[in-house]
Amino acid sequence: MGNLPTLLEVIDARRRIQRHIVRTPLHHYPSLDQLIGAEVYVKHENHQLLGSFKMRGALNVISQLTEREKELGVVCASTGNFGQGVAYAANQFGVSAIVVMPEDSNLDKIDSMRRLGADTLFHGNDFDDAREYAEQLSKDKGYAYVHSANDPGLVSGVGTYSLEIMEDLPDVEAIIVPVGGGSGVCGACVVSKALNPDIQVYGVQASAANAAYLSWKQGQIIQSTMGTGAEGLATRSGYEYTQGIMRELMDDFILVSEEELDRGVILHLENTHNLTEHAGAASLAGALQIKEKLAGKKIALVMSGGNITVDQLQDLLSRYRS
Amino acid sequence: MGNLPTLLEVIDARRRIQRHIVRTPLHHYPSLDQLIGAEVYVKHENHQLLGSFKMRGALNVISQLTEREKELGVVCASTGNFGQGVAYAANQFGVSAIVVMPEDSNLDKIDSMRRLGADTLFHGNDFDDAREYAEQLSKDKGYAYVHSANDPGLVSGVGTYSLEIMEDLPDVEAIIVPVGGGSGVCGACVVSKALNPDIQVYGVQASAANAAYLSWKQGQIIQSTMGTGAEGLATRSGYEYTQGIMRELMDDFILVSEEELDRGVILHLENTHNLTEHAGAASLAGALQIKEKLAGKKIALVMSGGNITVDQLQDLLSRYRS
Repeated sequence: MGNLPTLLEVIDARRRIQRHIVRTPLHHYPSLDQLIGAEVYVKHENHQLLGSFKMRGALNVISQLTEREKELGVVCASTGNFGQGVAYAANQFGVSAIVVMPEDSNLDKIDSMRRLGADTLFHGNDFDDAREYAEQLSKDKGYAYVHSANDPGLVSGVGTYSLEIMEDLPDVEAIIVPVGGGSGVCGACVVSKALNPDIQVYGVQASAANAAYLSWKQGQIIQSTMGTGAEGLATRSGYEYTQGIMRELMDDFILVSEEELDRGVILHLENTHNLTEHAGAASLAGALQIKEKLAGKKIALVMSGGNITVDQLQDLLSRYRS
Repeated sequence: MGNLPTLLEVIDARRRIQRHIVRTPLHHYPSLDQLIGAEVYVKHENHQLLGSFKMRGALNVISQLTEREKELGVVCASTGNFGQGVAYAANQFGVSAIVVMPEDSNLDKIDSMRRLGADTLFHGNDFDDAREYAEQLSKDKGYAYVHSANDPGLVSGVGTYSLEIMEDLPDVEAIIVPVGGGSGVCGACVVSKALNPDIQVYGVQASAANAAYLSWKQGQIIQSTMGTGAEGLATRSGYEYTQGIMRELMDDFILVSEEELDRGVILHLENTHNLTEHAGAASLAGALQIKEKLAGKKIALVMSGGNITVDQLQDLLSRYRS
């Protein structure tokens, strides 16, 4: 494919967005070393403003809109974190924003978008229902549509966290990234492979929402079912742009069960004392599945977000006890 | 009193310890603004290595031991976080360490100390039992005793997080700090008052373990009962050195109930998506109690640590649900 984003575009994205984000820490956890049998670092995008990496991409896209586009405003679809990112980015650049979400979305995330001045709309049962509605709104009203994955500027913006990983741990040997639409893992591929092609990059998806996995395996865009509780991974379609990058650069794709995601959240509570949402724990769950491949290596797990609600946490801990 | 630590000593401590710590973020939370009616920032020492601020003090003290003292090794008493800090600092400087803890201590914290190479001993029912035993060991065996509060070097080291607060938010108007032995609040007093005497500094202690509060109120060292579940606040004696600083510089002292601490942990889960131990939530609990005084101000809440166990979290969330 001809339009892979470049490392230079990621560096340029950082210049554009860095005033608006936190440079998140990469911490080493000896107790995770023991658990996985590797030297384990966690990239804490749960400590990013609004609790997830998503705003990095939204800031890079919205900062580059034309004046005319900025006047009309933007629309996006989201299960929560991306909508918060778009709401934040729009707010920073004085642009109005509409976020379309599936009905029954995470209330904390909805509150956060509204506080940032975004309008929220609810449509359909899952992300892709909401996405179709948002795309229609964009066509009908002329709002710029901000896609959560299918956009070079988005991937370059998201790639900035991988640039930080490489700066903090230049001798990293494997990077493991939760995959929803795929922007995170694509950013990791573009940045790390440009600096050292030997670095292994793994994507992790919930087996209950495996559209990206199936698309990647079969080399074409596949629609699949969506039954994961991990809202950050909840897509039922692969996306052309990120799929192209993943096929070209990603080393392997891991599927994890809902039970493995639950256990990942608990293991993070116990070992890193960090609150992660299920999607954010997918990287740890994936790493546990491929321990043999990772043995003795220096690895970075991306904790993509920490926006779990108290209700979700209560449910998880009550299941865990019983 | 003549031996107040100076801002310059804190700056010097930073030079000594900064290679060994994380510069933690200070984040603004609009949803806490609404809750408290002020502009609310949280200093995230829960994101410090090992999940609490304590190592800042231990590093500053241990780095300044003589070669002879380093050879003999150090001993300290701790309910958990300070012991981890001492274990880490001793490890960084190649010094052996013994940590004496009350029986029935936090298992995660014990594991962490052992992984850092410290020897762990258990003595008595609470911090002060363990402390007396550790002091005796120091006398008998010649180990350097590292006190968790009563030491200028310790306060200067801990003061480095307040220096970071002042750099990130120079126009802060009030700083609210959990108090166990008092090193954190003393650091905040020394640093902030040197830069701007108008900044208000508040200490917060659990009413179930109010020795520092009573000592401060009555102007003399008071022993009191210890019945808090917040291990980071669990002392039953005030300490001469920190009491002197608090009497001289601290603006007010707030007592919070166990219920208020529980609610503080929940409110942090909901509003900041951060996992805090009960002591770390004391600053938020205290701020809620003095909302009127803080109205419209720019305030910093110190989240002193995040080391809550999954069991403790389960207990809290099951109580909260019922």
